[in-house]
Amino acid sequence: MKLPGQGDFESSDAHENAHSEEPDSGLGPGPGLNGPSGIDIGESQVSKDPLLFIQLNELLGWPQALEWRETGRWLLFEEKLDMGAGRWSAPHVPTLELPSLQKLRSLLAEGIVLLDCQAQSLLELVEQVVSGESLSPELRGQLQALLLQRPQHHIQTMGIRPCRESNAFRKASRDEDAPLKHQNPLRQKLPAGAEAAAVLAGELGFLEQPLGAFVRLRNPIVLEPLTEMILPSRFFCLLLGPPTLGRSYHEMGRAAAVLLSDPQFQWSVRRASHLPDLLAALDAFLQEVTALPPGRWDRTARIPPPKYLPSQHKRFPSKLQEVTSLSRQSAALAEDKHHHGPHTPIPELQRTGRDYSLDYLPFRLWVGIWVTAFCLALVATEASLLVRYFTRFTEEGFCALISLIFIYDAMGKMLNLIRAYPIQRPGSSAYGCFCQYPGTGGNTSEWTSAKLKDTEDILSVQPGLVNASFLPPPECIRQGGHPLGPSCHTVPDIAFFSLLLFFTSFLCAIALKHIKNSRFFPSVVRKVLGDFSSVLAILLGCGLDTFLGLATPKLLVPTEFKPTLSGRGWLVSPFGANPWWLSVAAALPALLLSILIFMDQQITAVILNRAEYRLQKGAGFHLDLFCVAVLMLFTSALGLPWYVSATVISLAHIDSLRRESKACIPGEAPNFLGIREQRLTGLVVFVLTGVSIFLAPVLKFIPMPVLYGIFLYMGVAALSSIQFVKRVQLLLMPRKHQPDMLLLRHVPLSRVHLFTAIQLACLGLLWVVKSTPAAIVFPLMLLGLVAIRKALEWVFSPQELLWLDELMPEEEETIPENRSEPEHLFSGNDSEDSELMYQPKAPEINISVN
Amino acid sequence: MKLPGQGDFESSDAHENAHSEEPDSGLGPGPGLNGPSGIDIGESQVSKDPLLFIQLNELLGWPQALEWRETGRWLLFEEKLDMGAGRWSAPHVPTLELPSLQKLRSLLAEGIVLLDCQAQSLLELVEQVVSGESLSPELRGQLQALLLQRPQHHIQTMGIRPCRESNAFRKASRDEDAPLKHQNPLRQKLPAGAEAAAVLAGELGFLEQPLGAFVRLRNPIVLEPLTEMILPSRFFCLLLGPPTLGRSYHEMGRAAAVLLSDPQFQWSVRRASHLPDLLAALDAFLQEVTALPPGRWDRTARIPPPKYLPSQHKRFPSKLQEVTSLSRQSAALAEDKHHHGPHTPIPELQRTGRDYSLDYLPFRLWVGIWVTAFCLALVATEASLLVRYFTRFTEEGFCALISLIFIYDAMGKMLNLIRAYPIQRPGSSAYGCFCQYPGTGGNTSEWTSAKLKDTEDILSVQPGLVNASFLPPPECIRQGGHPLGPSCHTVPDIAFFSLLLFFTSFLCAIALKHIKNSRFFPSVVRKVLGDFSSVLAILLGCGLDTFLGLATPKLLVPTEFKPTLSGRGWLVSPFGANPWWLSVAAALPALLLSILIFMDQQITAVILNRAEYRLQKGAGFHLDLFCVAVLMLFTSALGLPWYVSATVISLAHIDSLRRESKACIPGEAPNFLGIREQRLTGLVVFVLTGVSIFLAPVLKFIPMPVLYGIFLYMGVAALSSIQFVKRVQLLLMPRKHQPDMLLLRHVPLSRVHLFTAIQLACLGLLWVVKSTPAAIVFPLMLLGLVAIRKALEWVFSPQELLWLDELMPEEEETIPENRSEPEHLFSGNDSEDSELMYQPKAPEINISVN
Repeated sequence: MKLPGQGDFESSDAHENAHSEEPDSGLGPGPGLNGPSGIDIGESQVSKDPLLFIQLNELLGWPQALEWRETGRWLLFEEKLDMGAGRWSAPHVPTLELPSLQKLRSLLAEGIVLLDCQAQSLLELVEQVVSGESLSPELRGQLQALLLQRPQHHIQTMGIRPCRESNAFRKASRDEDAPLKHQNPLRQKLPAGAEAAAVLAGELGFLEQPLGAFVRLRNPIVLEPLTEMILPSRFFCLLLGPPTLGRSYHEMGRAAAVLLSDPQFQWSVRRASHLPDLLAALDAFLQEVTALPPGRWDRTARIPPPKYLPSQHKRFPSKLQEVTSLSRQSAALAEDKHHHGPHTPIPELQRTGRDYSLDYLPFRLWVGIWVTAFCLALVATEASLLVRYFTRFTEEGFCALISLIFIYDAMGKMLNLIRAYPIQRPGSSAYGCFCQYPGTGGNTSEWTSAKLKDTEDILSVQPGLVNASFLPPPECIRQGGHPLGPSCHTVPDIAFFSLLLFFTSFLCAIALKHIKNSRFFPSVVRKVLGDFSSVLAILLGCGLDTFLGLATPKLLVPTEFKPTLSGRGWLVSPFGANPWWLSVAAALPALLLSILIFMDQQITAVILNRAEYRLQKGAGFHLDLFCVAVLMLFTSALGLPWYVSATVISLAHIDSLRRESKACIPGEAPNFLGIREQRLTGLVVFVLTGVSIFLAPVLKFIPMPVLYGIFLYMGVAALSSIQFVKRVQLLLMPRKHQPDMLLLRHVPLSRVHLFTAIQLACLGLLWVVKSTPAAIVFPLMLLGLVAIRKALEWVFSPQELLWLDELMPEEEETIPENRSEPEHLFSGNDSEDSELMYQPKAPEINISVN
Repeated sequence: MKLPGQGDFESSDAHENAHSEEPDSGLGPGPGLNGPSGIDIGESQVSKDPLLFIQLNELLGWPQALEWRETGRWLLFEEKLDMGAGRWSAPHVPTLELPSLQKLRSLLAEGIVLLDCQAQSLLELVEQVVSGESLSPELRGQLQALLLQRPQHHIQTMGIRPCRESNAFRKASRDEDAPLKHQNPLRQKLPAGAEAAAVLAGELGFLEQPLGAFVRLRNPIVLEPLTEMILPSRFFCLLLGPPTLGRSYHEMGRAAAVLLSDPQFQWSVRRASHLPDLLAALDAFLQEVTALPPGRWDRTARIPPPKYLPSQHKRFPSKLQEVTSLSRQSAALAEDKHHHGPHTPIPELQRTGRDYSLDYLPFRLWVGIWVTAFCLALVATEASLLVRYFTRFTEEGFCALISLIFIYDAMGKMLNLIRAYPIQRPGSSAYGCFCQYPGTGGNTSEWTSAKLKDTEDILSVQPGLVNASFLPPPECIRQGGHPLGPSCHTVPDIAFFSLLLFFTSFLCAIALKHIKNSRFFPSVVRKVLGDFSSVLAILLGCGLDTFLGLATPKLLVPTEFKPTLSGRGWLVSPFGANPWWLSVAAALPALLLSILIFMDQQITAVILNRAEYRLQKGAGFHLDLFCVAVLMLFTSALGLPWYVSATVISLAHIDSLRRESKACIPGEAPNFLGIREQRLTGLVVFVLTGVSIFLAPVLKFIPMPVLYGIFLYMGVAALSSIQFVKRVQLLLMPRKHQPDMLLLRHVPLSRVHLFTAIQLACLGLLWVVKSTPAAIVFPLMLLGLVAIRKALEWVFSPQELLWLDELMPEEEETIPENRSEPEHLFSGNDSEDSELMYQPKAPEINISVN
């Protein structure tokens, strides 16, 4: 049996276990907990090795002006110094030349390897290294002096450097060195306890033999001028040799740095006790290298860091795998962020109820009482367990329907608005409006006859001899006149202006939302623009409207705080004008409403409690439903609007409470730390929502077309984020242009299309039911989705359903441990087994409305 | 000295030379000319080796149901069979595991290698291979039978397979085999003379020793059922062994296939005479492999084919490098396609001339005569050579200005239109219009007084006692009445509807243009929608307008074919009412106009004759200018509009005449073959343009706002495609979000910003000059751009200008052969030397308007 996201719960538990094993790594980024989503957490559980900052210093300028210069640095990814531009490249996946790795191996095999060196300073270290080489004393001195020479580091400051600084390099002189080091923005991103490694490489004309040294310091020391940051250095690697063709020492230096940045090599080399261990670690690295053939790949291309890092769990000793893989899963899942969803079909049913002529509020009270009873019964029977049967098929059907309702309503209301403010076509009708005064010299009888005709056929009106002016209608009435003419009740320009406002707010909201993921502006600005896209779009619409001052229809808000229906008290009387048996008959609609509320509330709860949010609350499904039941009774008795699950608000709320690691390593996605759990902000949000009923003086400036535009945006945004829609798009794409979806690698296209077609048919059926008088059975139809999904097991194999949807509880048992078993029979396709592990499937519902 | 694109001319020449050396590879894709842009052309020049189709057949289903199945295929890139989905993956860059390459090497070293095998059939081949192994006769028989077993191929048909076909594989039975092979869509993409290679790999339980064989056939034969296509096979590789952990034989098979798909390995192995040659080729391949470290790279990710393939010229023996590199350059440059540019500043100057009160046409005739004279002088002095000084700086300034004029004019005209159809605000003015009849019983004096007031203050009109009706104005006039009131001359709703039309046509054109590069629809549909985006947007606008039937302003076209100015003949009289000295004074504006025409025509000519179009015409700059001069005289004498360079038309024309190879290898970009050069279509285009003056009955349905929307679209599209704008965008991007532009790797950001700022300032200055009465000196300002660019040499180093712009003739001499020399001094940055070679800089002007 599997709840949606149950696998996540498991891993979340495992994560908690891991936490309890290691109490010091609770909140802040601990010695090794700062790593990328998943792996490094796993690694740190295993090794507790500190993060390593690796720097490559190259010897340039032979023979004229020898100098050391930092040309590359590594944490997770490589940053290369673009010398011409004087800037660090974006972090990218390092690529190596295979020969350089082999040359490095043979250089180290013949060179000096000092493991657990006791040196206390750079000088001591250099002396130990140089004394190990078989060099003439003179050369030894030269070399020692060279190694102690201060290298040039490229510290990229945050601001923009002044233009007149023609030399692209900020030459770190001895005086300004210390303050510069504190400015280094990278330093702030490193966790406490980080160590450094320095790789020195280059070509030196006076050497006759290549000279290689690898040193591991027993106690890391700050090798003062070597690294750009004041960090204790653990490793030191020296690769020098006579000038060669190409840049082989540069490449060897890069190879050494990349090796050190590999977690497994680092793990091994920290524990190596003699040279063969080191070489074995290097060989193990070589075994895992991915080779890109020459000629089909542009070597100068910089591969951006992948979104999901591959799992490392296979690479560590097997007994440790379990812990790592589980904690990694939970962390990887934390990657997919934006889950929002407007699930508000309750208003649908409320609407349905009002069509019948009966004393509404008392009937509604009884429905509420019954719903309360049913919901309490559901709580008592732990019916929330049924939520397991809501697979993505059901969730997406539900979500697509809500989105379509949003879109349909927005467009429908705009059409109604245009009908209310008709467009005047030339020639199609007479227009004009003038102000008639009763008989100040005119013939009253003529005036009366004109007035009578006016109401009947506006085109044939011949007011004859009248006393009139062109005053606008309100002014006319004030002066005792009477507006007359076909245009008196129509306002020109409103229809098209409303359309403009509608599209403007829609497009503006979409554009602002996109800014969040664009390259422009600092991240703070992008975040504000993206988060407040709807609000800003509304403000823009209001501004336009106020600027032109047209009489567009505005949001109507009651000005007084009292029950809307005049003549009723705050409490609804339990019977009113209804016969007694209606209170029993209310059980039937209540049953349907209970289903709807149950589904709505449960789906919301499932989404909110997904493991990736790392909420401590767990699955309090039953308690939530209990609260809902009690609130139903309360709102029914007061005649307030019924409970709305507020998925959107809840998810936007959760999103705003995310805690992410600020200090992330270049190239690494921000590390999700959890949700700031508290009760305060939720309370404040709903208090402010309540207070908004006093905001009438402000809200009356909002034109309705702007609101409709925002509704359209919400519907479109919600619709475009679900996987179902992506599959519908596949129907329109030629086979060869289809994106490389994981799903398409494993399920034949015709089967994907069949599944999509069935979903489309279900959606069509739901829409028809909703639009006809049969709407009352709508909740049953929603439950029907679960049944249809169950029936799909006859059409699709479990393997296919696993990729297209997810498995229902019983199905899970039919699939053996190894998920790709059916394929395994033929191809033993295990090279892709792991992809399920770290490429999470598209999140079940991914609705982004804010 | 270097013309813009001169390097391209050189390579084009070299390309022609290569052609003349090899006359058979002229038009169609010859035996090896079908390759990707650049490399394969280069390779074919060298080796003339046929293209190799490599197929991997894997032995699956051990021990129950042994069968061979094709699981991968290679031409340039790898296509993998996604078994679950039953489809070929998109072509991607193959990645290998390093150990599999090493295992393959040792297997081949110990296995059977038959070079120049004489086998005439599969049976013979299998017998030879099997007899070489030290196996028991029984095993030998089993193995032989197995090898002769028919493999299953996955032939992907073009249509969508019926859904009921639950088995994803079309099992090729013996009967339907032959027709299927002819259906194979990949077959049509292979050039004549292509050869095949079959790699057979798998695990076989009854083997005790691994079994490797590599066969090169002396005469390629069709190994009937082995490969999915009927192609003569040149290579045969067998890799079998006892079952192992992992899928090592699968990976070894892939490694063998990737090796064979490598041009250099193939080149070597075709010429290998014994085993060590083969192993040496494999070692050479290993030396060139790019290694991606483990853990930082997702192995299951499929790397899409790079846009530009790296140059192979370094990999071939040195004496052949020259030819290859040059022909490769010209081919790589053929990659950047869309060059369109609206350069029509001539109307600007024409406009300027009309502001002064003089007999316009005779004066214009004299200007034309002078321009003709000046242009002929320019032709005589070969002034076209000056075009070398028009670097990208000048071209982009010119182009940005034109684009801004388009945008400004479109918006300005829309604003004028809104002013002409004012919006009626409630309360701000009286409105209404009624129809007044003179004195049929009313008091005429009252009516008269009302009429007088009407013209003066519309708000205070008190028409008093009148005889009136609500007939619309035209009807009113027909019935002898008189429309009276403030609304009689205004038409409601037009302003906002025009705005809607404006934005609709603008957005529709942009959206349709984007469809061309989207994943949706078959390529034919996308091409039609993209190519006719403007036309479709206009049609949509006209449709909307006709549907609503509003009186929007329409395009006015004269209905008669005659000179627009009434009372003048076809020929312009040389003096008219002007004093005689004006014919001399006309020389001054003529001088300025000549500059403008010269620049406009020359820039167009430079773009049209870019080497990447491979036009045979060469640089007929002087002749073109001569024609322009003669036409100036002709149009001036007839009073026709002056010459417009028609860059946009010319480029759209050239683009429609492109010839591209249809049969391109999966993953390869279409190969540009050249322009269909003829005189017919050009003539037809301009005849049709002329005929359009008789299209008045159709054109009068086009609303002006729709045209303005298209103008806006053209301006925006042109502006957004130039590199200058990309650099302006950099100003708004935080440093770390900036894209990995080649430029930014080599020039400090502050210098890039400085260059952009200077360009912006120049543009602002040009705009100011254009907008003031000083507009007459505008052409001189354009020439000023060249001077400013020249002055920039004092601010920027040649190295920087090389990346930011391009070099002017004199500068070229200051830069040594090796372009990256200043960097070389420090870093010997030669690993990136080649990037200039095959990553062409952004094309100078890349304006896409259609």
